[in-house]
Amino acid sequence: MSLAPLRNDTFLRALLRQPTDHTPVWLMRQAGRYLPEYCATRARAGSFMALAQTPELACEVTLQPLERYALDAAILFSDILTVPDAMGLGLHFVEGEGPRFERPLRDEASILALAAPDPNQSLRYVMDAVRTIRSALAGRVPLIGFSGSPWTLAVYMIEGGGTSDFRQVKTMLYRRPDLLRHLLAVLTQAVADYLNAQIEAGAQAVMIFDTWGGVLSTSHYQRFSLAPMQQVVAQLQRECDEPVEGAGHRRARVPSIAFTKGGGQWLEQIAGSGVDAVGIDWTTELGDARARIGSRCALQGNLDPLALMGEDAQIRAEVARVMESFGVPQAGFGHVFNLGHGISQFTRPDAVQALVEAVHEYGRKQRASTPARA
Amino acid sequence: MSLAPLRNDTFLRALLRQPTDHTPVWLMRQAGRYLPEYCATRARAGSFMALAQTPELACEVTLQPLERYALDAAILFSDILTVPDAMGLGLHFVEGEGPRFERPLRDEASILALAAPDPNQSLRYVMDAVRTIRSALAGRVPLIGFSGSPWTLAVYMIEGGGTSDFRQVKTMLYRRPDLLRHLLAVLTQAVADYLNAQIEAGAQAVMIFDTWGGVLSTSHYQRFSLAPMQQVVAQLQRECDEPVEGAGHRRARVPSIAFTKGGGQWLEQIAGSGVDAVGIDWTTELGDARARIGSRCALQGNLDPLALMGEDAQIRAEVARVMESFGVPQAGFGHVFNLGHGISQFTRPDAVQALVEAVHEYGRKQRASTPARA
Repeated sequence: MSLAPLRNDTFLRALLRQPTDHTPVWLMRQAGRYLPEYCATRARAGSFMALAQTPELACEVTLQPLERYALDAAILFSDILTVPDAMGLGLHFVEGEGPRFERPLRDEASILALAAPDPNQSLRYVMDAVRTIRSALAGRVPLIGFSGSPWTLAVYMIEGGGTSDFRQVKTMLYRRPDLLRHLLAVLTQAVADYLNAQIEAGAQAVMIFDTWGGVLSTSHYQRFSLAPMQQVVAQLQRECDEPVEGAGHRRARVPSIAFTKGGGQWLEQIAGSGVDAVGIDWTTELGDARARIGSRCALQGNLDPLALMGEDAQIRAEVARVMESFGVPQAGFGHVFNLGHGISQFTRPDAVQALVEAVHEYGRKQRASTPARA
Repeated sequence: MSLAPLRNDTFLRALLRQPTDHTPVWLMRQAGRYLPEYCATRARAGSFMALAQTPELACEVTLQPLERYALDAAILFSDILTVPDAMGLGLHFVEGEGPRFERPLRDEASILALAAPDPNQSLRYVMDAVRTIRSALAGRVPLIGFSGSPWTLAVYMIEGGGTSDFRQVKTMLYRRPDLLRHLLAVLTQAVADYLNAQIEAGAQAVMIFDTWGGVLSTSHYQRFSLAPMQQVVAQLQRECDEPVEGAGHRRARVPSIAFTKGGGQWLEQIAGSGVDAVGIDWTTELGDARARIGSRCALQGNLDPLALMGEDAQIRAEVARVMESFGVPQAGFGHVFNLGHGISQFTRPDAVQALVEAVHEYGRKQRASTPARA
């Protein structure tokens, strides 16, 4: 299969802290229920899992937001819990309640029996989707691959689904930290293999979603969430073949992003984990994050997803506030505009139009207002 | 009514950053469902609201944890949502789902019609409970009064109950900040009046629970959560009559505590709001909080409530970790041991015994290991 050269690499450049003409933007869960065309495809698929497991349909919904908006990246349509599903836990979705496992981890034996799956076997549908999407994108924008973090996968695997008190997983953490460490070691291997397989299949950047790191104490975050992520990042392939104009390939860097929701207190540690970019939720001021992290990593974020409930003028003002907080992009700093969490299903599609236009406009204005960079 | 002089003022002294013999401890929601005797009384009352609204029963459950454990403070048994209930919203509790309002705020007219209630009229049952408990305590330990923060009350009043996405209140925040500010102004007055009435009735310290401040961006936190709390604190009575040995009274300071769950990034600002102590959840290291706040405020917290799921030896180790993180108490610094959030209903009652003993033991050991203070 021959792939087209990338026509818009702004997103990758920003992640690698290289100069860009504008601030790139994409949105977590940009292929989601706020889009009527997504709902239509999902209805055709029958279920969320059927949608994720049918490469042609996964490709279709991945591209839908790109048809509407001038987004600077596509993200593989999938779920953060595909890995535990491939480990035999039986992922399904209960309407209005989120993900559930049919066979959550409830005893030592079931944890000790787990093994990292071969991503090209039981997760082959994901790699097929990556290849299909990459080909359909035809070089328009880069494709992001992703996984849940080992800690976040462990939470869902032990709790069996969403939770408000994290009682099962924390009982294990306090009573049987050895068992939790064993589980995290298996998941670390599984996530590293999974992300590397996505890179081999064509993902041009990867993101680790640590949805639940923020419920831990600082020392537990470091041990049970950040350390496994760091081990994943250390095992990632750093480069992929990128087609060049004419023919042939060059080796290109595959940037990685780590995002701990509620991790605002630990940004320095996350920035030190080996990733190229740190995802920031909306509770942290981007300017403060930039001051704390310096030019060690690019930043990705961080508009409150609910800001999209405002009217267009209010959305533009909030976008400007976020970009002002980051400040003028300078050489050595990178900013990828995003929400601080997944987009709400109740968002007006037009609100996203206002957001994307505002990011591109404001970013060009910021750059025009300062002397050219070296 | 003549009250007994206070025999254990360790809690109040720690809040005022005065030297103490040991580290005082109490637990958020210490009169709660983890205690079988609480469940029995609640069953007798028929409902949570009947329990809270019957002063003799509220007094009974307030004292139950003190009968079991050597706690250094009692906290009024009530709910953070009594004020909106008194404003006519109709508070009730749905088993397993938490608080609900029968008449949530859904339009501008219902918000503009709100007025701060007279706490000695519609909230008289709370003041009666404070007086009954204070008398029954007979000087054993101080009594804490409390309220939800204006922002937290606004969240529940607009959402109508618990929420995972805060969509209604944030839609108002982004679309109609003027209306939200109006609501918060009314609630600020209501909360200040309510806490002052509790102080007049006999509360010896007051705490403001800002359960939902942590879902805001930094600038919105300052405007919509912290600023109203600061205005409440500015209006608080600073002193009360405290009976002294023999007869008569002295004027005693009534310390205030503010607790924003998820507010770890904003501790300096909270410490600057005029309160005597800052509540810390378990995601922040107490030693870091102490370094950031210095001797401006006492700290209250911050064991992960789920640490109580461990065995006794594990609980003792976690208690020691928290107290080591705070460090040796020195003149000008104050630490009140608490959980970082309310105790889980699934806690073994014996776990609390282990915790309280460990706090007292370890605190005495810390003090013995250092030269006497000035």
